[in-house]
Amino acid sequence: MPELRRDPIIGRWVIVATERAKRPTDFIFEKGKKVARTQKKCPFCEGNESLTTPEIYALRKKGTRPNTPGWEVRVIPSISPFLSPEGDLDRHGSGMYDIMNGVGAHEVLIATPRHNSDILINDLPQLEKLNEVVIKRMRELKKDKRLKYVLMFKNHGKVAGGSVLGHQHIQLIATPVTPKRVKEELVGSKRYFDYKDRCVFCDMIRQELGVKQRVVLESDDFLSINPYCSRFPFETWILPKEHSCDFDSMDKKKVSCYSKIFQLTMKKLVHTLGDFPYNIILHTAPCRRKQKGYWETIEQDYHWHIEIMPRLTQVAGFEWGSGFYINPTPPEEACKYLKETNNVAA
Amino acid sequence: MPELRRDPIIGRWVIVATERAKRPTDFIFEKGKKVARTQKKCPFCEGNESLTTPEIYALRKKGTRPNTPGWEVRVIPSISPFLSPEGDLDRHGSGMYDIMNGVGAHEVLIATPRHNSDILINDLPQLEKLNEVVIKRMRELKKDKRLKYVLMFKNHGKVAGGSVLGHQHIQLIATPVTPKRVKEELVGSKRYFDYKDRCVFCDMIRQELGVKQRVVLESDDFLSINPYCSRFPFETWILPKEHSCDFDSMDKKKVSCYSKIFQLTMKKLVHTLGDFPYNIILHTAPCRRKQKGYWETIEQDYHWHIEIMPRLTQVAGFEWGSGFYINPTPPEEACKYLKETNNVAA
Repeated sequence: MPELRRDPIIGRWVIVATERAKRPTDFIFEKGKKVARTQKKCPFCEGNESLTTPEIYALRKKGTRPNTPGWEVRVIPSISPFLSPEGDLDRHGSGMYDIMNGVGAHEVLIATPRHNSDILINDLPQLEKLNEVVIKRMRELKKDKRLKYVLMFKNHGKVAGGSVLGHQHIQLIATPVTPKRVKEELVGSKRYFDYKDRCVFCDMIRQELGVKQRVVLESDDFLSINPYCSRFPFETWILPKEHSCDFDSMDKKKVSCYSKIFQLTMKKLVHTLGDFPYNIILHTAPCRRKQKGYWETIEQDYHWHIEIMPRLTQVAGFEWGSGFYINPTPPEEACKYLKETNNVAA
Repeated sequence: MPELRRDPIIGRWVIVATERAKRPTDFIFEKGKKVARTQKKCPFCEGNESLTTPEIYALRKKGTRPNTPGWEVRVIPSISPFLSPEGDLDRHGSGMYDIMNGVGAHEVLIATPRHNSDILINDLPQLEKLNEVVIKRMRELKKDKRLKYVLMFKNHGKVAGGSVLGHQHIQLIATPVTPKRVKEELVGSKRYFDYKDRCVFCDMIRQELGVKQRVVLESDDFLSINPYCSRFPFETWILPKEHSCDFDSMDKKKVSCYSKIFQLTMKKLVHTLGDFPYNIILHTAPCRRKQKGYWETIEQDYHWHIEIMPRLTQVAGFEWGSGFYINPTPPEEACKYLKETNNVAA
């Protein structure tokens, strides 16, 4: 009989197929086509800076000028932004509806100057640099008083909405309202804290480290797990062991530890699943100003984490209509597969 | 500048791209391959009853026996059910987590005995019969005290999780908990009612009929609209004008009116978009027993409706992480296209 599991943070139910669990080889997905280096016109490659929107920031060699070669990580405004940084906030009603102009930011972080380099998997120093730049941009965007949240994400592979460009990059979108899904997590975490006087994520980490069957990797400061209520086969989260609500509060040493476990986790996933389609999403606390209400307690309630969501199954009518997910691979099984790939070099 | 719109029911934000709105021809999707009638082994075709699980119910000609030809609509248990009808409910904790055995029902309603008949578009009498059977099954499932919700949905096309069988059918899943997304709508509708003393859907209908720019079709008892906060291009809802929370409370006359507007709406969508991938989901009130709290007020708060969600765009990292949707076709534009297909025969 299938099992229904309830997520302790937001109360989402997941149907976990416990019999006939799907194995890594049971998932069929379109393999990403590697775009060859010969594609000289890739706008994200070093030397082609003139093909992109003018850079906002770049980590670059001393003495090199903006929008020229010599950079290591480059930040540009999205060429097709969802939100625009110009103008004041204007929110008003339209009959019973609410409307707001689309103020915000949409930035693309080019992760490496080299076209075919998959830095998430095989270039730790470069991944550290990328994460440093993410933090720098998040801190900068949070200063803008019109913005309430900065969302970092990466799409990979066609079904996950990934770009066909084949040049590694991630995206930052800053929004003028707190997104619904973030709010749900904040409210859920607060509810737990109010009741237990403990952080729900800290409790989860404690339980997972005790039970062990869903812990993929553990380092001094971080762990990666297949969460008990995984919505997707091989869904994997990375969390800091020490309570912290802001991703961008990490210092250089922490960023280095985080980059390491992130890369090892990704390596295990790729070893197990191949070049799989995925979305990676950072869940971190919203921008905070002096505000009353539950925003005040956010530092004790909330705990940042990364969610890696392989897109091996389709989200169809039942999931859309119910918010219930059906996961054909129990996280305990997924974890076994991921743990077995011990031959992964650090 | 893009526009941010807030849904008045659950408070979800949608980014609507108002400039460079995408037209119907801008969406590229894999066309569904018609599976030829020659595929003798289609288990849903009349004459192949022995290839399916034994029928639960069938609307059939007098004198014909179960699991033999002579039926018009046939209901069978899913061959790969998400939930199982056997056993008692057992909900318990596992450390901080909640677990429940997967009690429920998962039924497939074969919409027609004929393989290539698209009854949603071109066979009104058959669609009426199908809807009568849906109501019959919903009423039956609601009697089961272990079950809290009956979800009806249809997936069409590969990206929407549709079956490759090519024989029209819909699905019913009955769950032992109220799904999260349903709860959100119930809570949102109640909040509105508590404040305004009016149903949020009734107010929406009033506003839409006044403004008219998002009304696709209107009949005596129903209307179909492209909602103000459409998450997807050409998202279309069908609602009864008269307040009603239960889909299965419709009498034969209402079912006939509903089937008519549903079919005309689908025709307009198909004329505009071609054989597009979609999910159709019924949003209706949960099973109700004598319970305290907000369940008592559900009849005045909630309003059933159908959501037709074309899957023309991809849901990627940003949407997953934020619960924000990005819609490249404003509903007002979508409505213009749908209205223009006036040549559709009734």
